[in-house]
Amino acid sequence: MTQQHLILSCAAALLVGGLTVAPAAEERPNFVIIYADDLGYGDLGCYGHPTIRTPHLDRMATEGMRFTSFYSAAEVCTPSRAALLTGRLPLRNGMCHDQRRVLFSNSAGGLQPSEITIAKALKGRGYATGCVGKWHLGHLPQYLPTRHGFDSYFGIPYSNDMDSVVEPKQRRASFFNPKIEYWNPPLMRGEKIFERPANQHTLTKRYTEESVAFIKKNKKRPFFLYLAHNMPHVPLFASEKFSGTSARGLYGDVVEELDWSAGQVLQTLRDEGLAGKTLVIFSSDNGPWLIFDTHGGSAGLLRDGKGSTWEGGMREPGIFWWPGRIKPGVVTQDIACTMDVFTTVLTLAGAPVPKDRVMDGLDLTPLLMGTRPSPRTTMFYYRGTQLYAARKGLFKAHFITRSSYGSDKPEAHDPPLLFNLNHDPSEKFDVAKNHPDAIEDIRKEVAAHQATMKPGENQIEKTLSKKN
Amino acid sequence: MTQQHLILSCAAALLVGGLTVAPAAEERPNFVIIYADDLGYGDLGCYGHPTIRTPHLDRMATEGMRFTSFYSAAEVCTPSRAALLTGRLPLRNGMCHDQRRVLFSNSAGGLQPSEITIAKALKGRGYATGCVGKWHLGHLPQYLPTRHGFDSYFGIPYSNDMDSVVEPKQRRASFFNPKIEYWNPPLMRGEKIFERPANQHTLTKRYTEESVAFIKKNKKRPFFLYLAHNMPHVPLFASEKFSGTSARGLYGDVVEELDWSAGQVLQTLRDEGLAGKTLVIFSSDNGPWLIFDTHGGSAGLLRDGKGSTWEGGMREPGIFWWPGRIKPGVVTQDIACTMDVFTTVLTLAGAPVPKDRVMDGLDLTPLLMGTRPSPRTTMFYYRGTQLYAARKGLFKAHFITRSSYGSDKPEAHDPPLLFNLNHDPSEKFDVAKNHPDAIEDIRKEVAAHQATMKPGENQIEKTLSKKN
Repeated sequence: MTQQHLILSCAAALLVGGLTVAPAAEERPNFVIIYADDLGYGDLGCYGHPTIRTPHLDRMATEGMRFTSFYSAAEVCTPSRAALLTGRLPLRNGMCHDQRRVLFSNSAGGLQPSEITIAKALKGRGYATGCVGKWHLGHLPQYLPTRHGFDSYFGIPYSNDMDSVVEPKQRRASFFNPKIEYWNPPLMRGEKIFERPANQHTLTKRYTEESVAFIKKNKKRPFFLYLAHNMPHVPLFASEKFSGTSARGLYGDVVEELDWSAGQVLQTLRDEGLAGKTLVIFSSDNGPWLIFDTHGGSAGLLRDGKGSTWEGGMREPGIFWWPGRIKPGVVTQDIACTMDVFTTVLTLAGAPVPKDRVMDGLDLTPLLMGTRPSPRTTMFYYRGTQLYAARKGLFKAHFITRSSYGSDKPEAHDPPLLFNLNHDPSEKFDVAKNHPDAIEDIRKEVAAHQATMKPGENQIEKTLSKKN
Repeated sequence: MTQQHLILSCAAALLVGGLTVAPAAEERPNFVIIYADDLGYGDLGCYGHPTIRTPHLDRMATEGMRFTSFYSAAEVCTPSRAALLTGRLPLRNGMCHDQRRVLFSNSAGGLQPSEITIAKALKGRGYATGCVGKWHLGHLPQYLPTRHGFDSYFGIPYSNDMDSVVEPKQRRASFFNPKIEYWNPPLMRGEKIFERPANQHTLTKRYTEESVAFIKKNKKRPFFLYLAHNMPHVPLFASEKFSGTSARGLYGDVVEELDWSAGQVLQTLRDEGLAGKTLVIFSSDNGPWLIFDTHGGSAGLLRDGKGSTWEGGMREPGIFWWPGRIKPGVVTQDIACTMDVFTTVLTLAGAPVPKDRVMDGLDLTPLLMGTRPSPRTTMFYYRGTQLYAARKGLFKAHFITRSSYGSDKPEAHDPPLLFNLNHDPSEKFDVAKNHPDAIEDIRKEVAAHQATMKPGENQIEKTLSKKN
């Protein structure tokens, strides 16, 4: 063991042993979360895609830790993002809904001021906080990033396909030949709209430039950057430099530009000497939007996609990078979830994890530092407000199934369908008959979980024009 | 450019420019082909599998070139292997059949003496040649590896599921709880059977030991090792060391033991100082045998598996490793095929490629050396003796489809189904209507190809007991 390793190990031991003394400002790590939109489990080179090139994210994985069971907390955008930033299931803060599913541009609801975001928690520890990109947790002033702990905001406050201005019957076709003028989403700085419609061709590029500028500006203090891309959510737009360059077509152009963007962020951290003190996390909010054919992504070998509680809807690429702290090249099969990001980041920053509410995140620090397995052994799969499935260890039980955004009806299962996700990651072979014990075990976990569940006031059903 | 790079570049330029002077013995590279059986496109870590760990093959890819469009020449074992070793489509040498599909233990046919295998061609250049593992090109003495240019042979001469000794109605069940005594395949050294039934638990281990011994024994002369595993073809058997160790279950144990095996071969080459003068190629004979549920593998995002002309049946992992010659960490989307291995190896060894017969292989050396793209732009997908599909560039036309080993009937398509494999690697969206030109283009390629086709005398229909 070299001296450097020894120091790192001691630091790691201190961290995993629980921080009795909060780290001084100069020791507080920076955090960068890069969040893609509707990117599938199978869409990166390092997750096996044959025709999308992602050398920067592949390198990030080679230099860091790559998860093969990393989950979004929800199957669609708004609840996913609420969970990531608050460490709590969206049902607890009213950020999910069975019919509307996400916030729209006529929504009147949003993330409540009582919620504690990562940004708000880190502000209390002296962090500079920046939000760049898609928000989707409420676009009225009281819900914007700047009201939730972020010093600055630059981005579209919801999905890039909202505010369509084409005739309803032309709407689907408009996605397959996207032009800026078909949609009218606002681009905001702080709380002001400064461009409408947003020029989506340059969105990823501008988000990247904003992110790089934020890092450079705040390099002398601890910072938290939340870079939430609008892409590769449809309608797909790439900059001139990337248009027509990927073998995978426009979807590939867009993902390869996201990969470039991640490369720019990581290189800036290296150039500024911040690599060793910055934890960078890459993931996506939910699986690929399969109904958009080649304009949607791929969940690889996983079943189904966005909107579904099959694995393809919620299992995502998950890459954690922190040179000198996270051992390079580790691929972990341990279970983790975006909600754990909340708890992990707060713990590493020495910020107190809220004790006045039910938290769903767990601290991944020991896993990242290679000292202990992931504390997470369960996953609860909600579709809107309903618990459809639950995983414990290698088994996943589906109490209700329904395919993604299709028109099929929910189907209840009693006994539930049971899949061994380790043996059968594609959820093809129901093994319920062979493992009644596993079902019983999961039922107990679900009962215990549901006893903690007090749904928050629903935010998604509130609309500006009329009650839904 | 360092001096070393300059020398390498010059050597590469000489190679790609065409060898006017054959290399002297001490300059002839060694060749190792590691061939898995029924391994799917999605079954390795570096191809995205979530629960199978393959650190040695992942490292091989990181140090070498990984293909995302590497094909087996056929959809099942016997024709695949004939094509790999002769650089010719199996229909040309009678090594495919529509009903029997592969050779069985009652077969009387085999690879004809008139065929030139890689081993035979390299013998003429002074190579030591060893065959370890599954042969499946005829088990009668006149067809064995030792009659086809190999100095030595150690292995089972056909598939490990042949010579079943259980009642037909118990046969399927026997695969899911495999015991050595359910099958009676012979294990041979040279032309003699020395163990029957073969103890399949130690097969991968013994194949590895034989391979390592072969390399050590022949390290002072150029050598060619063909290591063709029987695994992960069902019935699955792992050694004690690997049994029960993979999250993926028995299939994972078996693949992880194959990964260990590849690691042993590569480490031996490093330890013996041979890494810089040995080209190692890893691939598999066809896609995963999906009818065996979790005892079969995964084609990842590709459609269908073994036995089918959908991509999952014939697109395979393809990893080429040659430190100092192949640039590390390259992922190529260029098209290549196992038949190209024949031509590439002969070219690199300075052996003449046969001119008295139609050859299907192409020389990949320029691609491997990074100087030019792959010369291959087409792929012909045969199911038995019938051409079912053809690829040119990014388009693939299916003239006939039929799913893998299922009971469905062949379905003819006119116009053919057309898929853009770059945009749609999962073959989900037929674009025939939009690209009549691409179909016309493929039809021309097929016509030109078929004009070269003179089927060889069929070897697979010949049986010892009765004419089929």
